[in-house]
Amino acid sequence: MRPNTVKQLWREGKPAVGCWLGVPSSYSAEIMANMGFDWVCVDTQHGAIDYSTALPMLQAISTTPAMPFVRVPWCEPSIIMKYLDAGAYGVVVPMISSRADAEMAVAACRYPPRGYRSAGPNRIVYYAGQDYFEHADEEVACIVMIETPEALANLDDILSVPGLDAAYIGPSDLSQALGLGPRYNADNPKHAEAVTRVREACERHGVIPGIHTSGSGLSSRYITEGFKMIMLTTDTAGIIAGARGELAAIQPALTAATAAI
Amino acid sequence: MRPNTVKQLWREGKPAVGCWLGVPSSYSAEIMANMGFDWVCVDTQHGAIDYSTALPMLQAISTTPAMPFVRVPWCEPSIIMKYLDAGAYGVVVPMISSRADAEMAVAACRYPPRGYRSAGPNRIVYYAGQDYFEHADEEVACIVMIETPEALANLDDILSVPGLDAAYIGPSDLSQALGLGPRYNADNPKHAEAVTRVREACERHGVIPGIHTSGSGLSSRYITEGFKMIMLTTDTAGIIAGARGELAAIQPALTAATAAI
Amino acid sequence: MRPNTVKQLWREGKPAVGCWLGVPSSYSAEIMANMGFDWVCVDTQHGAIDYSTALPMLQAISTTPAMPFVRVPWCEPSIIMKYLDAGAYGVVVPMISSRADAEMAVAACRYPPRGYRSAGPNRIVYYAGQDYFEHADEEVACIVMIETPEALANLDDILSVPGLDAAYIGPSDLSQALGLGPRYNADNPKHAEAVTRVREACERHGVIPGIHTSGSGLSSRYITEGFKMIMLTTDTAGIIAGARGELAAIQPALTAATAAI
Amino acid sequence: MRPNTVKQLWREGKPAVGCWLGVPSSYSAEIMANMGFDWVCVDTQHGAIDYSTALPMLQAISTTPAMPFVRVPWCEPSIIMKYLDAGAYGVVVPMISSRADAEMAVAACRYPPRGYRSAGPNRIVYYAGQDYFEHADEEVACIVMIETPEALANLDDILSVPGLDAAYIGPSDLSQALGLGPRYNADNPKHAEAVTRVREACERHGVIPGIHTSGSGLSSRYITEGFKMIMLTTDTAGIIAGARGELAAIQPALTAATAAI
Amino acid sequence: MRPNTVKQLWREGKPAVGCWLGVPSSYSAEIMANMGFDWVCVDTQHGAIDYSTALPMLQAISTTPAMPFVRVPWCEPSIIMKYLDAGAYGVVVPMISSRADAEMAVAACRYPPRGYRSAGPNRIVYYAGQDYFEHADEEVACIVMIETPEALANLDDILSVPGLDAAYIGPSDLSQALGLGPRYNADNPKHAEAVTRVREACERHGVIPGIHTSGSGLSSRYITEGFKMIMLTTDTAGIIAGARGELAAIQPALTAATAAI
Amino acid sequence: MRPNTVKQLWREGKPAVGCWLGVPSSYSAEIMANMGFDWVCVDTQHGAIDYSTALPMLQAISTTPAMPFVRVPWCEPSIIMKYLDAGAYGVVVPMISSRADAEMAVAACRYPPRGYRSAGPNRIVYYAGQDYFEHADEEVACIVMIETPEALANLDDILSVPGLDAAYIGPSDLSQALGLGPRYNADNPKHAEAVTRVREACERHGVIPGIHTSGSGLSSRYITEGFKMIMLTTDTAGIIAGARGELAAIQPALTAATAAI
Repeated sequence: MRPNTVKQLWREGKPAVGCWLGVPSSYSAEIMANMGFDWVCVDTQHGAIDYSTALPMLQAISTTPAMPFVRVPWCEPSIIMKYLDAGAYGVVVPMISSRADAEMAVAACRYPPRGYRSAGPNRIVYYAGQDYFEHADEEVACIVMIETPEALANLDDILSVPGLDAAYIGPSDLSQALGLGPRYNADNPKHAEAVTRVREACERHGVIPGIHTSGSGLSSRYITEGFKMIMLTTDTAGIIAGARGELAAIQPALTAATAAI
Repeated sequence: MRPNTVKQLWREGKPAVGCWLGVPSSYSAEIMANMGFDWVCVDTQHGAIDYSTALPMLQAISTTPAMPFVRVPWCEPSIIMKYLDAGAYGVVVPMISSRADAEMAVAACRYPPRGYRSAGPNRIVYYAGQDYFEHADEEVACIVMIETPEALANLDDILSVPGLDAAYIGPSDLSQALGLGPRYNADNPKHAEAVTRVREACERHGVIPGIHTSGSGLSSRYITEGFKMIMLTTDTAGIIAGARGELAAIQPALTAATAAI
Repeated sequence: MRPNTVKQLWREGKPAVGCWLGVPSSYSAEIMANMGFDWVCVDTQHGAIDYSTALPMLQAISTTPAMPFVRVPWCEPSIIMKYLDAGAYGVVVPMISSRADAEMAVAACRYPPRGYRSAGPNRIVYYAGQDYFEHADEEVACIVMIETPEALANLDDILSVPGLDAAYIGPSDLSQALGLGPRYNADNPKHAEAVTRVREACERHGVIPGIHTSGSGLSSRYITEGFKMIMLTTDTAGIIAGARGELAAIQPALTAATAAI
Repeated sequence: MRPNTVKQLWREGKPAVGCWLGVPSSYSAEIMANMGFDWVCVDTQHGAIDYSTALPMLQAISTTPAMPFVRVPWCEPSIIMKYLDAGAYGVVVPMISSRADAEMAVAACRYPPRGYRSAGPNRIVYYAGQDYFEHADEEVACIVMIETPEALANLDDILSVPGLDAAYIGPSDLSQALGLGPRYNADNPKHAEAVTRVREACERHGVIPGIHTSGSGLSSRYITEGFKMIMLTTDTAGIIAGARGELAAIQPALTAATAAI
Repeated sequence: MRPNTVKQLWREGKPAVGCWLGVPSSYSAEIMANMGFDWVCVDTQHGAIDYSTALPMLQAISTTPAMPFVRVPWCEPSIIMKYLDAGAYGVVVPMISSRADAEMAVAACRYPPRGYRSAGPNRIVYYAGQDYFEHADEEVACIVMIETPEALANLDDILSVPGLDAAYIGPSDLSQALGLGPRYNADNPKHAEAVTRVREACERHGVIPGIHTSGSGLSSRYITEGFKMIMLTTDTAGIIAGARGELAAIQPALTAATAAI
Repeated sequence: MRPNTVKQLWREGKPAVGCWLGVPSSYSAEIMANMGFDWVCVDTQHGAIDYSTALPMLQAISTTPAMPFVRVPWCEPSIIMKYLDAGAYGVVVPMISSRADAEMAVAACRYPPRGYRSAGPNRIVYYAGQDYFEHADEEVACIVMIETPEALANLDDILSVPGLDAAYIGPSDLSQALGLGPRYNADNPKHAEAVTRVREACERHGVIPGIHTSGSGLSSRYITEGFKMIMLTTDTAGIIAGARGELAAIQPALTAATAAI
């Protein structure tokens, strides 16, 4: 089976840097997957993407060495299994609030007897190899999101679930959970303290700490703090920054041209 | 009929700044259309887009004040008419090499007696208004691309075709036409001279001069030189620049983190 | 944030008239949205539509002043959130049978602390405005369907859930709930009595009463009775009525032509 | 091979009544195909439809006895052949202006030696039968549109092309051709005279006369005049008429309700 | 209403042989549906298919006498109802483990009072007939999958649920349930015993016994044993066997040609 | 630039064996591409595929070492260029009948000065490498189809066009060209003689001889005769053979089971 190179990095104690896809297109997915990220995550929760658009995106990522991940829309076994069959080497499961949630996420990622994943993969055996069944339980990364008040309260219960690979902080929802509103609040002490608390709990339980960021500034900070799964940037962030930056840069020329009329 | 605000800018002697869409998605199209460009062009020649993917992109652009343009794949009446029906307020026709080509492009954009556009628009009457038929010939922008050796040789023949609104330079193909290879060569004197020659010919014939650029640097230069239709940046350029820039910016933190293992 | 004009009508005590989309096409959606309805609802329960086809339909509706609504397939948080992110200003949640169901529907529509909607909207911020987060809880309409025997039994429990905007009667399912079979039975006294009972309960709880109808006859009746959310007609109803009516109207000419052979 | 029941009607001297599809959806196509038309035409010229959306529409029509037709976007052999392979039993070819055009249309519809249609059908053999090759030349209807000034001038040249089945008038383009503007002008004597002239020429050459109409009024008139291929109504006409009619019908109730506030 | 010919076969005591579709294409679906199977099942659990791709596949199957079935991704009422509306005459519900699961599956397939299926079918009334509501409860086949350890433990509880038509063994998951790993293990005595046990329990409860197989060998065996719902082969099995077989068969010619260089 | 491994085989005098895709799905494409063919051709002429469905198929093929080819629908520069930009390493151009046709096909595949291919590739630079422009003219395979009477008459004129890589016989159309009807007629002496004549002409002009076959029997024969580009089998051939073969094989068991009732 093709190894999960992100899990290899983790075993070596190294951070794995990834990106997020919200645009439902296999073309933009292929471009992003060629940029040099360790993993590329198709976001089917907040991205404008569902199964039929995600499938060719996973194929497009598979033309590169980047590991294909999927954020599923919710903690539901059927959709977790469906994206694993479709080629995901990691699933990011949002809004995990309890040990039971985390156990369900893990069980959906593992074949019996470790879980109850249904056997019948489709394209994954072409991407992963015909011996996928034998190694999938080891190679597939099960990643739960920590972002609700309940999750903060149940951290140790959640992180001690066997088979859990990583815990990934959703900073906007975490901010909401802390009563700070639905925006990035990395510099708010309450937010920073919660982030640290999650990371330390991960380290205590041998779970990889991960976090979603808004770019290189926060990513650098969290890498330095010890996070090992870093979401650096997204397809739409690039589109927006590119357009805004270029439009700002031509204003002098535009103003001069208009003044000259 | 909803006025073509790009043609209004041109009537006032002002430059109209636009962007280019290569990603086949109505979501990225809507984001780009919200950034503040005067026009947004769906590229069905070199973009990864055909009619069925372009249609919702044109609808997405129509949620904003930006004018929807389409670069058609080739100078063929049927596809020009089909994109006009679908909502394009301007068509960019590539690889025009002769007066006959330009006449065909214009004729496909105009109803009889000025051309031979077939009557039977579909969604355009919702975007433009029920009086579309009465004003379409005036409002629709017919834009031909100047980028082949033959076009340079036949400049006056082409630019004097009645009903032609703008001539748009494809700098890569122009570069090829000049024997300079298929890359941007704006600083090559031969290329710069040809660009100037096209612009001056446009000014001579009352045709709007336009040019495709690789970003704000060249855009500013060409705005200053007098170009009135400026392609500033693209969706894919933003994706690439964003990913590359962010990845470069975290290298110090990554290196430090790895060194610390 | 762009105001929800349907909720404005309701605040003024006025009925809001809408239509229903069952055809999975952004083109028919745009036509319907241009007809003058106050709201246009993409039906992902009984319509032939899922997320990837609904997204461009919501964009098409957004080219007009009509408010985009979505009927979700079931009372599940993830799909409610996904359609809100995609641009819905109202969600219609079918088969609500208990206070717990209604609370789940409302919670999925509201950010913490009022609910548990996850932060990370995609295209909604372009349609609604960058201040969406601040006002979404007020502007988004949460509408539950009353159509099961249990709902009739639990009316007050359901309608007293804080944050609920409207209760919408599904008359066919209501008919089934009353043992009258799966058809419109508006004139059946049992059905009429239940409709009245729901409307009066809504008025008692300050919830907008709404109802699905089969056209202008029933719509007029229910408007007169005091309903404020009226589903007047659908895309497929128009297609069927148009084809049947025109076919009937040419029978005389056809018969004569055939007789003349 | 499944017989072309429209050609059977024509052999019996009977009119064949059809409809037009502009909405790119296999669901609306299936509804229309169930209404009782003799033929159902997927419009890939002015409809919002291209090959990938037309294919499932042709399959949907194939669930009914209605004959599947396609209006191709232009008189080009490759697209005519592609839609025949996909299941069209008739192709309507727009903007035919000369004998050469008509000969090209016919040749694309017929296998050698009668034409140059390439052998390699795909789904048509499932719809038509495995003996398709033996009978296709007889069963496939080749229909050219008469709608340009040149076509009026070359009527006899066009209609005498061997293998041509029908000539179909596009009344809006015909109106433009006559200098009457791009609208229906059936009552204009110049238009009526041209319609009659085309019909009589068809009768002279043994070609079926056909015409596009705006509904039962004109359809009845043209059936009575002797037209045998009648386009009665469209999917979008039904949608528009349905929505407008129902909205008009509730105005009294709405006005009363609003007045009562 | 169009009769469910598979249920007719079952009433006559005859086996119904079907196939499985994993490729998301209405074209391959139509080919498979023309091959002569009694039923054709669109697999939305392990197949690469979701609703928007399944819909045209169901239409394509409807061009033939084969009965359209759907394997839903999970035992959830909304998706079962959505596929029934879309045209499924049978639903195969995976991972049924308890009487409650089976009751939910049946209830989602039946209108009140027998279940809680919501009324509002879309294309099914065109495929089935306008009297669908009156007969759907009788004609729709509700098929549950027996494949988990819990299902084996609760066999009688599950199979005695009123309204259940068939129980279908998923042999790979059953193999996992028995601790034999996720592969076909038909010859393993433990597996064979379990298969027999399920079949005998079905016979005891008047439920049709069904099983998924890997081809004609196992199919013949299970037909002989008394199974009445047999999944013979799949679209992807044909693709793989065809390519492998043909590639193997040309090796001698290839070797000779290469040796001759 | 990623080398074209098919052209490498040809330079070594070895045959390159490929397959044909007619099903519009990136999933079946990926399966076929994993089977071990040297090249995989997306058929957009007779396959049920157009640009928007071909794009993800080309991406799926790109997950494997097989070379992605496209048969374009017709000899038209714009579509040839569009598929090259999308990732095709070879284009198969049907119905070439004259030297002018062949020159147009080659010119569309080559950048100036060798041809007039427009510069502006999209995904090809990710598949091929950023130095694509420098090597594309050498690596891209331009393959013309020989299948019309005119092509047989103009063989030397066509095959002597500089830059032509291969000539590919379409045996069904060739059969038609020879007056033998639209079927495989490999054993007809007239057909065999024409095939030999084309191969020998290819050898005379240093052009690779290629041929479409119906499976391993004919493929072996043509490999032995010296053909170097062999189309062995297709996705739909596998589907059909698989279903038919398995259905035939269970007839004894079915008959016995039915007899036992």
